Amino acid sequence: MSKQLGAQSIRFEKPVYILNSGSVVGTKEGAGPLGKKFDRVGKDDWFGCKSWEDAESTLQKMAAETALEKSFLEAKDIRYLFTGDLLGQSMASSFGVGSLGIPTFGLYGACSTCGESLALGSMAVEGGFADRVLCVTSSHFASAEKEFRFPLDYGNQRPLSASWTVTGSGAFVLGDESAMNSYVSDTTSVVSQGKRIPRARITGITVGRIVDFGLKDSMNMGACMAPAAASTIQQHFQDFAVGPEEYDRIVTGDLGKVGQRVLIDLLKERGIDISKNHMDCGIEIYDESQDAHAGGSGCGCSAVTLSAFLLPQLEDGAWKKILFMPTGALLSKTSFNEGKCVPAIAPGIVIERV
Amino acid sequence: MSKQLGAQSIRFEKPVYILNSGSVVGTKEGAGPLGKKFDRVGKDDWFGCKSWEDAESTLQKMAAETALEKSFLEAKDIRYLFTGDLLGQSMASSFGVGSLGIPTFGLYGACSTCGESLALGSMAVEGGFADRVLCVTSSHFASAEKEFRFPLDYGNQRPLSASWTVTGSGAFVLGDESAMNSYVSDTTSVVSQGKRIPRARITGITVGRIVDFGLKDSMNMGACMAPAAASTIQQHFQDFAVGPEEYDRIVTGDLGKVGQRVLIDLLKERGIDISKNHMDCGIEIYDESQDAHAGGSGCGCSAVTLSAFLLPQLEDGAWKKILFMPTGALLSKTSFNEGKCVPAIAPGIVIERV
Repeated sequence: MSKQLGAQSIRFEKPVYILNSGSVVGTKEGAGPLGKKFDRVGKDDWFGCKSWEDAESTLQKMAAETALEKSFLEAKDIRYLFTGDLLGQSMASSFGVGSLGIPTFGLYGACSTCGESLALGSMAVEGGFADRVLCVTSSHFASAEKEFRFPLDYGNQRPLSASWTVTGSGAFVLGDESAMNSYVSDTTSVVSQGKRIPRARITGITVGRIVDFGLKDSMNMGACMAPAAASTIQQHFQDFAVGPEEYDRIVTGDLGKVGQRVLIDLLKERGIDISKNHMDCGIEIYDESQDAHAGGSGCGCSAVTLSAFLLPQLEDGAWKKILFMPTGALLSKTSFNEGKCVPAIAPGIVIERV
Repeated sequence: MSKQLGAQSIRFEKPVYILNSGSVVGTKEGAGPLGKKFDRVGKDDWFGCKSWEDAESTLQKMAAETALEKSFLEAKDIRYLFTGDLLGQSMASSFGVGSLGIPTFGLYGACSTCGESLALGSMAVEGGFADRVLCVTSSHFASAEKEFRFPLDYGNQRPLSASWTVTGSGAFVLGDESAMNSYVSDTTSVVSQGKRIPRARITGITVGRIVDFGLKDSMNMGACMAPAAASTIQQHFQDFAVGPEEYDRIVTGDLGKVGQRVLIDLLKERGIDISKNHMDCGIEIYDESQDAHAGGSGCGCSAVTLSAFLLPQLEDGAWKKILFMPTGALLSKTSFNEGKCVPAIAPGIVIERV
């Protein structure tokens, strides 16, 4: 049986475990509905640094260190690193986890990079190229505003369709059967060291296409990204021959409230109803009182929500199987200023309780 | 036997063929020593567009189409696309090959992205995740100057250690045994259609670490990148238990003349002499009269040189085995303005004549 499924998907034959993960966020995320679930919350959003870019790099390193600590591993135990962020030339990663000295693949999938890193990371593990990999992605509200929009001091008004870039980084240690066994086999420490037995694995992926619906509004990225999510979800169901009922939750990355509505409508037009089990990390991470408008966004949004909220739901047995689908809006300052559209991409990751 | 070799490398057990490739360049590259070898040379560097960014996207699409045509394939025959460029948020790719509709992985490894795309592309093929993948990377002198340095009209003076970003894009179709067989089996057309039998395969890779020697001069990127190349070459020899004599050529991406000297010296200090078989794409692509100073650079530099010059040397039997190692300097406008160093990365790809 081929691992290749349908037009865009892969079903993994060998298990790829999520050994453990780490989540670090800023103050606004810490004050939100998921606040108590994150591993670490910053005292402020500077993380001891003097520039927003350095703050984001530090955030990323903290998330990676947390994931490694929780997995009882060190950087040298990781074969390959898959990493990316939103900044020009992925600078948060180059100066962040890049410094860990792990052989590195730099990725760019805009806010969907967490999904891309998990997709390529699982392929590396399942293909036998690595026993353990680390997937780390981040975003920071202030570095992203500087990169994409207006100087913070300018006090620009944001429309209600705009999202709020999450200050946060999520890191995931993926491992093969042998990595899982060596983690678990040290039974004495499972209790004494408070080890958690990994209870989630990645069983398949659907790689996203770049979808361009001709939308140009960078203050309504949910609407720009919804068509890409719809495309991947529809193809995913076709490739795996399943429907929405297969999943306890279908979780998009950062469509927010406007994008969620567009996604559900687009899929309804195609005869697919995900309204009962759709969830969006961008909607979960802030509450109404936090003035985040449409919701959270950024690579960090889906990454920290997966680590702190979604994985525990699988591990605790509340859910058995989810389709995790970070969404990325492909724009830059230059493309925006040149009046280009905002195409988008959405990779889908199937995560199951072991 | 494990595919994992030493600390950073992979030896492929199943063959990964380079089915064919395409190279498209600008006028300066067309006028250089490799000029006649490229598949297509632009009449000018606008490629029919009104912005440099669009010109680069078009360049990329042309390279992809050329590689597909030469492989007698269409976009729909390609399972996954691995692509990247130098622009902020990889915009040349999003609006370039992104529009081909192939499920996509976006990459960022600065000028080393060609190597990164070949590494991940081969892993996807060898791991059984794809029968055929397309690896496309590009750079454009004018879009890169705008992104990283000064407006062209400013007429900034360039020191002799500076390199010249290559306007060019290289695209590579990688395939597994079945893809190779289906390409070759149509024997009537091999002669009648002028088909070239693929004669090169990727047999191993060494994934690069991010190396930071504390250098800050973005006008001397060769020196910034040489330590990363030295690190990967040294590790490669250790992982594969070989020495420089194993390779007809050890080909770096865009160190240029200054970087080449630094690399050879750094390795000599470590007891490794690559002076006899080192070659650098950045040195090959322009000649002295072209005022390119240290040499060519950019994702496109190593990509078009591999396609138009290195692969034919393997196919014609002049060489049997090369270590191809694009080099990437990790900097952005922001990191430069904030006074940060320029770390670098260099992935190594072993390419052998079949």
